[in-house]
Amino acid sequence: MHTHEKHRRAAEQEVGGLRFGVITVSSSRYRAKMEGEQFSDQSAENAVRLIEAAGFSVASTKVVDDDVHMIRLNVLKQLFEEGCDVCVTLGGTGVSPRDFTIEAVRPLLDRELTGFQHLFFEKSLSEVGSAAMMTRSTGGIIGGRLVFSLPGAPEAATTGLNIILSEVKHLYSIANKQ
Amino acid sequence: MHTHEKHRRAAEQEVGGLRFGVITVSSSRYRAKMEGEQFSDQSAENAVRLIEAAGFSVASTKVVDDDVHMIRLNVLKQLFEEGCDVCVTLGGTGVSPRDFTIEAVRPLLDRELTGFQHLFFEKSLSEVGSAAMMTRSTGGIIGGRLVFSLPGAPEAATTGLNIILSEVKHLYSIANKQ
Amino acid sequence: MHTHEKHRRAAEQEVGGLRFGVITVSSSRYRAKMEGEQFSDQSAENAVRLIEAAGFSVASTKVVDDDVHMIRLNVLKQLFEEGCDVCVTLGGTGVSPRDFTIEAVRPLLDRELTGFQHLFFEKSLSEVGSAAMMTRSTGGIIGGRLVFSLPGAPEAATTGLNIILSEVKHLYSIANKQ
Amino acid sequence: MHTHEKHRRAAEQEVGGLRFGVITVSSSRYRAKMEGEQFSDQSAENAVRLIEAAGFSVASTKVVDDDVHMIRLNVLKQLFEEGCDVCVTLGGTGVSPRDFTIEAVRPLLDRELTGFQHLFFEKSLSEVGSAAMMTRSTGGIIGGRLVFSLPGAPEAATTGLNIILSEVKHLYSIANKQ
Amino acid sequence: MHTHEKHRRAAEQEVGGLRFGVITVSSSRYRAKMEGEQFSDQSAENAVRLIEAAGFSVASTKVVDDDVHMIRLNVLKQLFEEGCDVCVTLGGTGVSPRDFTIEAVRPLLDRELTGFQHLFFEKSLSEVGSAAMMTRSTGGIIGGRLVFSLPGAPEAATTGLNIILSEVKHLYSIANKQ
Amino acid sequence: MHTHEKHRRAAEQEVGGLRFGVITVSSSRYRAKMEGEQFSDQSAENAVRLIEAAGFSVASTKVVDDDVHMIRLNVLKQLFEEGCDVCVTLGGTGVSPRDFTIEAVRPLLDRELTGFQHLFFEKSLSEVGSAAMMTRSTGGIIGGRLVFSLPGAPEAATTGLNIILSEVKHLYSIANKQ
Repeated sequence: MHTHEKHRRAAEQEVGGLRFGVITVSSSRYRAKMEGEQFSDQSAENAVRLIEAAGFSVASTKVVDDDVHMIRLNVLKQLFEEGCDVCVTLGGTGVSPRDFTIEAVRPLLDRELTGFQHLFFEKSLSEVGSAAMMTRSTGGIIGGRLVFSLPGAPEAATTGLNIILSEVKHLYSIANKQ
Repeated sequence: MHTHEKHRRAAEQEVGGLRFGVITVSSSRYRAKMEGEQFSDQSAENAVRLIEAAGFSVASTKVVDDDVHMIRLNVLKQLFEEGCDVCVTLGGTGVSPRDFTIEAVRPLLDRELTGFQHLFFEKSLSEVGSAAMMTRSTGGIIGGRLVFSLPGAPEAATTGLNIILSEVKHLYSIANKQ
Repeated sequence: MHTHEKHRRAAEQEVGGLRFGVITVSSSRYRAKMEGEQFSDQSAENAVRLIEAAGFSVASTKVVDDDVHMIRLNVLKQLFEEGCDVCVTLGGTGVSPRDFTIEAVRPLLDRELTGFQHLFFEKSLSEVGSAAMMTRSTGGIIGGRLVFSLPGAPEAATTGLNIILSEVKHLYSIANKQ
Repeated sequence: MHTHEKHRRAAEQEVGGLRFGVITVSSSRYRAKMEGEQFSDQSAENAVRLIEAAGFSVASTKVVDDDVHMIRLNVLKQLFEEGCDVCVTLGGTGVSPRDFTIEAVRPLLDRELTGFQHLFFEKSLSEVGSAAMMTRSTGGIIGGRLVFSLPGAPEAATTGLNIILSEVKHLYSIANKQ
Repeated sequence: MHTHEKHRRAAEQEVGGLRFGVITVSSSRYRAKMEGEQFSDQSAENAVRLIEAAGFSVASTKVVDDDVHMIRLNVLKQLFEEGCDVCVTLGGTGVSPRDFTIEAVRPLLDRELTGFQHLFFEKSLSEVGSAAMMTRSTGGIIGGRLVFSLPGAPEAATTGLNIILSEVKHLYSIANKQ
Repeated sequence: MHTHEKHRRAAEQEVGGLRFGVITVSSSRYRAKMEGEQFSDQSAENAVRLIEAAGFSVASTKVVDDDVHMIRLNVLKQLFEEGCDVCVTLGGTGVSPRDFTIEAVRPLLDRELTGFQHLFFEKSLSEVGSAAMMTRSTGGIIGGRLVFSLPGAPEAATTGLNIILSEVKHLYSIANKQ
């Protein structure tokens, strides 16, 4: 058994059930929510389903505006007030002038998991070809907790969540190694 | 009348009563508070007194641990959840390995008010001589609100607050100029 | 049809014919040009051919010295004076002490398209193996226009241009999304 | 005679007449100029007068929009196309959301003259008191040329120009030392 | 023959035998060494074997603590005091709170070889799957010498060394191109 | 007695005799030394005299070339190999293209003492007027030790050393506070 495989198995036994937070970053859904309108949040529903199917719980879901400060506030609230071990943001990761999630999350990280970006890009490339170039992502460690930022489109979010869910116990254990 | 003076007067008429938040950054007071012990928080009391004496209101006071993430969370909460226009942190600005306030606040700023640091240093220098070197401060604009980080020692905090209170209306008006 | 594919098709219909600028970064060709000597610029000729074959026009071509400031000046001139929508630089992207294009272009970008670098590296890797390590590239958005920096060697430039030309309409439309 | 004084005298003898460029950064004046309207540019006129009174020539004057890319383009054009040795920008240095000159100029600098900012702040402080906090400035070396960014208000610009004009020959000579 | 292939061959003829330094970054081995205990350093032995098998010599081996300053000091000593042309560090590249090698080495680099990181990630991905995300690496040029930081696990170090050893002559020649 | 004054007195009693290292950064003296020529190093002699007169010892003196990597190596050697508590570099702090000391030292710092720069500038300004703009300095904490970079000119170095020597015990005690 490869060294990495041995570590992963050990980590999974030590780390109990991790609690996730999910944040939808979307100006239109945020407005809908603020104005009490009905709105569907497929990306978040899909994310919750995948997280729970992998045996973890979702402790908090939020919808926030495409705004650097609101994204930062809510990531920090999930991780340091609401007891989430892992925060996943969905949306706002593109390269248009109105996408701010990567810019909001990156300065909060103690360590960036550049390998996660890399792996997410690789998977996106094999799924959508060179359009993967329009997509960004990030992941990192923040005070012993984990945060990941994925695109809002359900296909892309699923790709990202599959990577996260397969390694999250191992990553969490490393992020908290003494 | 000098151009700057004219602008300041105009700003004071436009900007109504600003609401302040005060955050004490101190591991010992945070522990005392968590354990339900009595503790005095002279710096915060002094700051509240000065802010109110200048005609502004204090909408929120908090005591937080010397921890990058807790400082960030609470600055963002005061400004984007609790309706404060200006957040002043007290403490954790030194250069010891356990001082983190400057490191916590700086990455949150849209624009740093380097002139504030400069002016605070000047005043400190005239008050305590070359020991001013051990003191740091910062100030900046974040989503149209203002944040300032001052030392916890009451003398130093008073020095900083006097600078802030004399210019805060003008600064707030500039930070929100369209 | 995949979400990305749908967006790409819509973008291609909205964005009309984009105008390209091409900049050759090369000290030897720059000297030749300055001294009125004959010189061939295969990389640029190849780039122009590929751009035109993809149905776009080339509005400006330039030869500049391997110099940070001259590269910056000419990228900005093509995009903000000569009406180019997309600027492509060729050359100066290596890791030798005399290569400066990446250093010149990166600070000008509003948003870096890290996915472009990634994709270009992937393609280079499959073409030249581990020597791809010696090659750099960048791409990004600058005031709603696009800029890409590719190696000067015709094979590598062709690899990069093929990626750019297949996604440029979609990218341009995103970079200008309101 | 102090070491610095000796160097300054030597520099003044070596460096011949320096050529200045002046750039007014102002959205309103830029619009006026674009629309062929009459407009007065007191700051620029004042700057030209001071520069010439100090025995230097003004080789180029421009009016540009409050826009990061246009400021960068025009600074680089004056220094690397129009033969200016020193570029002085006026305006856009405040801390409002529409002030971009400092953000535009800083990434272009090879070396920032942090002492210039410091000195300009000191002089402003003695002239306008704590309102100096609302003012920013920068100065630096770029490819052996000099650039300085000053506020647009004539009093502040005069303060900055007086500092620049008294040391510019010495600075230029240092920036070009082999 | 492809352009890259031609350059590589030429480089190998020009650059003579390169001298390597190897640094093991490990708190436990460092303590063992300090206390005069026996310890095995499989990673370093493996690295030396691979380097010598590729026809290069190892001029220095060291064991250092997981400490930013000690790592920096020893990388600089090998390259600028002990006559090594290439320094390879092993260990301390993970993302746990006690891994500091990437943080230590990166600020020392004149140019980062981002392509090396990329290629190392690719190879790791094909060997260990998504666990490659937990691994970091870097490589770069520093004063005409080369430095590479690899994980300490022998499998991962071997993967990295195979990439380095196949391109090191070419890279070294480029890093010293006039 | 002011709070700062009380802390300073306490610190002086706790911290025993600090050991200083002095590094002269000068290409001409380095060459002279390498070639076995006689050379005088007034700046270093002056610094040693001032340090000893203040009751501290000088444990190491070095002459190094104006080279980023050599400066870094020797600062780290004094602090982490030769047992110095404080390292003072002299020279290479100007703004000419051949001055690299600030660029070499800054990335090594855990915390920069921006107040030191500020204070040094103030004192220089009162001594040499606006020519102080040509001078740079830095100071900071690195692994619990202190480093300061001063100009080589004896007058300026004396100005800087006087600031350092009056506060070094207090600073050292803060830098090592648990």
